[in-house]
Amino acid sequence: MYYGNDAGIIEPMRRAVVLVSGGLDSATTLAMARGDGFACHALSFRYGQRHAAEIDAARRVVEHLGVVEHRIIDIDLRPFGHSALTDAIDVPKDRSEDEMSAEIPVTYVPARNTIFLANALALAEVCGAADIFLGVNAVDYSGYPDCRPAFVEAFERLANLATKAGVEGRRLTVHAPLIDLTKAEIIIKGTQLGVDYALTHSCYDPPTDALACGRCDSCRLRRAGFEQAGLTDPIRYAD
Amino acid sequence: MYYGNDAGIIEPMRRAVVLVSGGLDSATTLAMARGDGFACHALSFRYGQRHAAEIDAARRVVEHLGVVEHRIIDIDLRPFGHSALTDAIDVPKDRSEDEMSAEIPVTYVPARNTIFLANALALAEVCGAADIFLGVNAVDYSGYPDCRPAFVEAFERLANLATKAGVEGRRLTVHAPLIDLTKAEIIIKGTQLGVDYALTHSCYDPPTDALACGRCDSCRLRRAGFEQAGLTDPIRYAD
Repeated sequence: MYYGNDAGIIEPMRRAVVLVSGGLDSATTLAMARGDGFACHALSFRYGQRHAAEIDAARRVVEHLGVVEHRIIDIDLRPFGHSALTDAIDVPKDRSEDEMSAEIPVTYVPARNTIFLANALALAEVCGAADIFLGVNAVDYSGYPDCRPAFVEAFERLANLATKAGVEGRRLTVHAPLIDLTKAEIIIKGTQLGVDYALTHSCYDPPTDALACGRCDSCRLRRAGFEQAGLTDPIRYAD
Repeated sequence: MYYGNDAGIIEPMRRAVVLVSGGLDSATTLAMARGDGFACHALSFRYGQRHAAEIDAARRVVEHLGVVEHRIIDIDLRPFGHSALTDAIDVPKDRSEDEMSAEIPVTYVPARNTIFLANALALAEVCGAADIFLGVNAVDYSGYPDCRPAFVEAFERLANLATKAGVEGRRLTVHAPLIDLTKAEIIIKGTQLGVDYALTHSCYDPPTDALACGRCDSCRLRRAGFEQAGLTDPIRYAD
């Protein structure tokens, strides 16, 4: 795979693995990786999530933005239970921002980002990518321990010790380009890069495939983000 | 779960997650965790390995040594390919110890221990374990990047940033009690702890369920270990 740089010299394109959930954040992250000139290998997971419409959204997003390949891996996180995203626990609704940030929410899936990144690392190794992109965001959602900058840095350190590439001196970088952005800033950034947010899916508890509930934490953060950005959210809400 | 300590006071037993592959090293590690007084949650993986007899061995080992529970998780690493343990690549035979340690072997599965430990971390979080045991060994098998002390330390650091337990100040420890032991030392240690090595499985390319090939790196290291320990290996070899 080759592309022309500013000097007109043809160089091999750098490859990156991008975790794509089908949500707003990962769609924006993929657009940023593409904008940085990476040939992207998209990676999604079927992990027993209740909102399986995510995977369909991930397919639409990668087709829209363009990738080298899209791998969907089955990982059953249900044996680990203890999360409203995989178990028969009610998804909390209508919480204020203070309530959302007060504690680690029940939608937290134990060690999920660690498991996702470990798989991304395996894919990076086999496709020769030295870069991994992850759409975590610490500003709007500080409740998840594995969305913090210190977590991302610790994983990057591990990645460089865990792999053949690291041992052989090819440095791996874990990018979390949204980590310091507010939801509104993410939406503005993605809109500038041409992301069609109508294709994305954010709801934790969608009443139908075509509707978002509008009341779970994820819907509320998304709606507030569009409002603060002064943009119209193109998806449809039940409430 | 309660047990009496030296003073006769009944205390709750500490829980540990132990990765059990069915091999000699992980059987010894489980015996050591049991010897240290842990209530053990054993974790094994069906990861598309060619030598699926491993899982049967893991079941025998945990039954023999005693655990609270044994979870077997399906993780398909075949999409990541590039390893003789999951692909149709020939397992190397009859290599000298120098040849074995000269480079990362084709039996290396990309990011495998990172993926296994990420799952162990999820289980530790849901069962309330603050300890994870892993049977990696850097002396006899320095070819795998994810068997080195620096890798284990980096994972422990990550684990304490990745989880609710870490955030709430319950420190997680990753134990790799074999990391500095030779294969002979591991076998002597396990024998003292009562491990029945007849139940374990080490071969990368077993000709039948009841026989080990005797010629792959894993068989050669095992046989040399028993010889150096001055003990008889109870399993049967084809060659």
